Amino acid sequence: MAVTLKDVAIRAGVSRSAVSRTFTEGASVSEKTRRKVEKAADELSYRPNALASSLTTGRTKLIGLVSNNFHNPIFLEVFDLFTRGLQDRGLRPLLVNLSDQTDPAGSVRMLRQYSVDGVIVASSTLPPSFAKEFRDAGVPVVHSFGRRSSAPQVHVVGIDNVECGRMAAQALIDRGYEHVAFLGGPEAATSTQDRLAGFMEVMRRHPGIAVSHSFASEYSFDAGRVEMTKQLMTDPAEAYFCGDDVLSIGALSAVAEAGLSVPGDVGIIGLNDMEMARWENINLTTIHQPVGEIINSSIDLVVATVDRPERTPEARLFPCRIVERGTLRPLVARGA
Amino acid sequence: MAVTLKDVAIRAGVSRSAVSRTFTEGASVSEKTRRKVEKAADELSYRPNALASSLTTGRTKLIGLVSNNFHNPIFLEVFDLFTRGLQDRGLRPLLVNLSDQTDPAGSVRMLRQYSVDGVIVASSTLPPSFAKEFRDAGVPVVHSFGRRSSAPQVHVVGIDNVECGRMAAQALIDRGYEHVAFLGGPEAATSTQDRLAGFMEVMRRHPGIAVSHSFASEYSFDAGRVEMTKQLMTDPAEAYFCGDDVLSIGALSAVAEAGLSVPGDVGIIGLNDMEMARWENINLTTIHQPVGEIINSSIDLVVATVDRPERTPEARLFPCRIVERGTLRPLVARGA
Repeated sequence: MAVTLKDVAIRAGVSRSAVSRTFTEGASVSEKTRRKVEKAADELSYRPNALASSLTTGRTKLIGLVSNNFHNPIFLEVFDLFTRGLQDRGLRPLLVNLSDQTDPAGSVRMLRQYSVDGVIVASSTLPPSFAKEFRDAGVPVVHSFGRRSSAPQVHVVGIDNVECGRMAAQALIDRGYEHVAFLGGPEAATSTQDRLAGFMEVMRRHPGIAVSHSFASEYSFDAGRVEMTKQLMTDPAEAYFCGDDVLSIGALSAVAEAGLSVPGDVGIIGLNDMEMARWENINLTTIHQPVGEIINSSIDLVVATVDRPERTPEARLFPCRIVERGTLRPLVARGA
Repeated sequence: MAVTLKDVAIRAGVSRSAVSRTFTEGASVSEKTRRKVEKAADELSYRPNALASSLTTGRTKLIGLVSNNFHNPIFLEVFDLFTRGLQDRGLRPLLVNLSDQTDPAGSVRMLRQYSVDGVIVASSTLPPSFAKEFRDAGVPVVHSFGRRSSAPQVHVVGIDNVECGRMAAQALIDRGYEHVAFLGGPEAATSTQDRLAGFMEVMRRHPGIAVSHSFASEYSFDAGRVEMTKQLMTDPAEAYFCGDDVLSIGALSAVAEAGLSVPGDVGIIGLNDMEMARWENINLTTIHQPVGEIINSSIDLVVATVDRPERTPEARLFPCRIVERGTLRPLVARGA
């Protein structure tokens, strides 16, 4: 027979409301009462049921995090920030891993069925239509690392990838490279398309610099190594803007394997500034993406949307900056 | 007014049972009926509620993953395997991040309150008593990466860390090193204690080899770099068994910063064989821990324990093996 809240109240010698408040996050209860209630609950093996109360409130406090990039080391930071950020707010992180085998529509169905209060889609490679499916199903949604838009159809939190492409191009120009290339992530990803667009926009103003571009099959070490190995066998550029840090590290491996030096023979700049970029063994010059601000802002926005589902979709973009380490040659002194 | 299952059944022209089966994972329903039901559900914006059904079945299909190691890159693999493994079984992964700020007792309370069906504690640094708290609270629990025991108090899935210490010691002896050291993880961790015990056990049989040991403050790149920097300033060994791969990579950085070469001046062997160990920039000789088998077996065991809570606690241990890469000098030919 299940132990009820009333049983605990009787044993603890307190009101039922006091028991309820003890097990409600954020509710006020004296330390003395809390101790009495917890002791009685332990003795009776009482398990307060947050799910039962969710049927009354209509809220489960579950927030889903959906992504297809679980292998990218940047996700270490994403998972850490996402779980801590939710816990700090009394919410629960439910993960959905869209591996190759998982049908995206199935994940929408699953999260609807599971009555999550809201969803964060954390991916720059899933199409914008994916996040829209949640919106269309009436599930509050935020697309983190999504595409910038002046009239977004769902909430987007991330960076201006076109501007990052411009920054990378300018960094290579400022260092005097005369043959440069973009080694991007998957061609279909909005992040790849936007970074390339910004890169080419700046390069078009410098017709003296030779420019080329290519795409890796995914954001992974192996894909970066394979694509850079291909580049080195044909007509390698002097410097590469790689689609992200893990691609950059794969590219660095390929350069080392070819017996070439960085930045002497080949320069590389990445994007993300994930933890491994600052490892001395890697020491990657890169563009810092403020992942902490993106995740925290995404949580704030999904919570606000749960409270007010009719909120107009907005785009929150955070500025990026170059972190100078050891994989590009030094700046050329101007006017020297 | 909430749309009910009955409303969907009427609109779809099927029985209520057919609607219920459509939204129950694994239940049998014809493709034609499924399509009718899903169409009707979409038109009515019906959201089937897995939580409501959990009140009937007593199962939420939520499995918690608790850890305090979210920063260790090995967790990329853990999260990926854990989420996919649960999804494949129709279960949901709920993460609990025990960062420094989180009170461990609070996490037990939170997961009890949240009515998870079971919990996997994935950590080699949390004390065995932590997993026991779940057991004592009546929550089915498996301690992954826990300590080997002939009479475990909770289910344990992992490796024999004492045996790994022996393997590392033998690897260094076989390569002719005459001054070796263990640079372990946090001293209080069972993984550190066991790896050290096995290492010293073998070394005691080789009194001609000088042996020392020290501990890093945590399993992290920075802690490994700091501890190895300290070692190099006093009386460095010829070769180190580092507590895990991320410590090893920090140690490699310290060696490079000191202007020394690997494996020429200093040899290093790690433990885990996480993805970064095989990056050419790292190329770490290490002991492979079969994380995939550990996580899948942990899921199987927690699911079996949900079905039969009275199951006697068991220890499942998986064998490890050395992966030879570039951070130890070659084997010494025997009898040469």
